[in-house]
Formats: sequence, structure tokens, C-alpha cells
Amino acid sequence: MKQSLGAKTLLFPAPVLMVGTYDHEGKPNLMNAAWGGICCSQPPCVAVSLRKATYSYASIVERKAFTIGTPSEAAMKAADYVGIVSGRDTDKFAATGLTPVKSELVDAPYAAEFPFALECRLLHTLEIGLHTLFVGEIVDVKADAEVLGDDGLPDILKLKPLVFDTSHRGYHGVGPLLGKALAVGKKL
Amino acid sequence: MKQSLGAKTLLFPAPVLMVGTYDHEGKPNLMNAAWGGICCSQPPCVAVSLRKATYSYASIVERKAFTIGTPSEAAMKAADYVGIVSGRDTDKFAATGLTPVKSELVDAPYAAEFPFALECRLLHTLEIGLHTLFVGEIVDVKADAEVLGDDGLPDILKLKPLVFDTSHRGYHGVGPLLGKALAVGKKL
Repeated sequence: MKQSLGAKTLLFPAPVLMVGTYDHEGKPNLMNAAWGGICCSQPPCVAVSLRKATYSYASIVERKAFTIGTPSEAAMKAADYVGIVSGRDTDKFAATGLTPVKSELVDAPYAAEFPFALECRLLHTLEIGLHTLFVGEIVDVKADAEVLGDDGLPDILKLKPLVFDTSHRGYHGVGPLLGKALAVGKKL
Repeated sequence: MKQSLGAKTLLFPAPVLMVGTYDHEGKPNLMNAAWGGICCSQPPCVAVSLRKATYSYASIVERKAFTIGTPSEAAMKAADYVGIVSGRDTDKFAATGLTPVKSELVDAPYAAEFPFALECRLLHTLEIGLHTLFVGEIVDVKADAEVLGDDGLPDILKLKPLVFDTSHRGYHGVGPLLGKALAVGKKL
């Protein structure tokens, strides 16, 4: 018999998404978002939800582009700082020492120091309530060679992405492999 | 200098979502989905994307409701099995031994053995491409007492949710706390 906890935004796990944008003056900015995930395979798309009050909101609407960077565990403090201050009055790249790299494909920057990034062009906008959901088509994935496996794809244990705990607002790491999808279930 | 990997559905981490529905005959069904995440705070909403070809798709459209269950590490094999077979020809609850519980609030079931579940009513449908994004308003959260902390909220280290690796399709666990959000960044 389960207990009722009320209507809450709890989901496990949630990601730590570094949303990269240029503002109206071309200043690069980063935002820390947890409300998002992959939302389509063909075309490959990612969804991220922002409040209209955020500085990044207008940037995405104007430029019709954003990036999603993945900070490794080592960049946890910088990633968290990005979620504490606003791009309205802070140059977050300068403050963190992160280096903005202009995407060749979309009108948005990503941080060189985060080992993984998605370059996205805005495909859909859905007003939900306090948050607006932006669907971005992933036009390219960029990754550092250091986080790739022998097959050329990212190795999650090398990437060491942060897991966001929606319940107690903590950052966690990813543990070792427990089983392969579409395989362990055959031995049910 | 990052390497280009092409346009791919990679994001770290991704969740393991057990989508619970009733079909047109009232048979309870579960689906294993990784394309989803929280998408709004007010009203609290979760998004999950399904292909039209899935058996669960019509159930969500018809019943305008679904649940999102979170399997613990111990339920990995059952969660994976749910992603291997189709509800068209298999009673997944019977095959896995999971117990369907009818939500009191929405027209959908969840599995008693998964320690955490969201009860959702369909709020928006967005056609993207191969996948359709369903936004569900979270009308209640249900959890087993065993996974709650002293404050009555889920403890992620008791819940032990699975992390899906979008790159190599593996299931991982969640590691220990590395830092508190909106706190560790102050010491940048």
C-alpha cells in the first residue's frame, strides 16, 4: 500500500543540463536545467523546459537555437554556480572560467570544458504553465576524445555525468553497469 | 577540440520509465521508455515520448491517462522484460508477476512492486516525428514507506532508481551524494 505524497515534480533520475545560448547582444550564457530529456528518435530531438522569467528564454526564442552541455563530476561546482546567478547581470563564462565555443551549426555556444554537448535548432515550442517546453532538433553531437569508448561512442563511466535528485536537490554520480538493456529481461 | 559524432539521441543520464496504461479491453500494460522527463513545475507535469506503433500509444490517447513507475535496481530484469515484449500479445503483469494497482485518480494502473509512481492525466500531445510527446499532469505521487526519508520525501539512495545509458543501452545505479544543488556553486 503506497502513501500519497501529493502532486509534486519528482522523477528519478533527472539530468543536469547546461543550456547554452547567445543573448541579444551576442553574450554567451549558460543555464542549469533539470526539466528535460530526449523526446524523439527521428528526427533526433531533445526537450528542455524553461520559465519565461529566465534570461535564457528570450535568447532561445530569438536565436531559435540552443546547446545542451553535460558537465562531468569534476565540473559540479561550475554547473551549480550557473544555476545560482542570472545571465542578466553576470557573465557566467567569465565568472566560472569556462570557455564559450560557437557552434558551427546553430546560433548558440557551448562550454569547451564540458566534455559533451548537443547542438540544437528550435523545432517546437509548447506552453504548458509556469514552464515552456522547447523541442530542439539535435543537428550534431560533440564530444571530447577522452570520454569516447573504443567504438567511438561516449562511455558513460568516462563521461561521469551528474544525476540530479529532484527530491532533495542533490547531485549524484552514475554507478557501474548493472545490466544490458533488451538482454537482462530475457532471463526473467 | 571536440569530435563530431553526428545527429544522435544521446543524453546523460536518461531515466527508466515504466509507463502504465489500460488498453481498450481494460487489460493493464506496462511499457519501458527512456525518452522523458519533468517538463513543468506549475502544474507539475511529466513528458514521455512514444512511437505510434507501440501498444501503449492508443491506450494513452483513449484513456487520457498514464502512470510513470520507477523500478528499483532489484526490479531491473522485470523492467527490461517490459521493453522486450509487446502488450498486444503478452500480459506483461502476469508474465513478470507484477501486481497492477488501479490509480484512484486517473484511468491507468501502476505496478505495486515498483516503489514509486506518478499518476498522470493527459494534458498535451505534441507530434514531433517518429515519436509523439505526451505531457501528463502529475495529479499525485505514490511511494512505498520504505523509500522515504525522515522528511517524508523519497530518498534516492533508498529508491535506487535505474539510470539508462543512451550510448551503450545499459542500466546503471545512482552513486552517493556529491554535493547539494544551489549550494556547492557558492564556493566556486
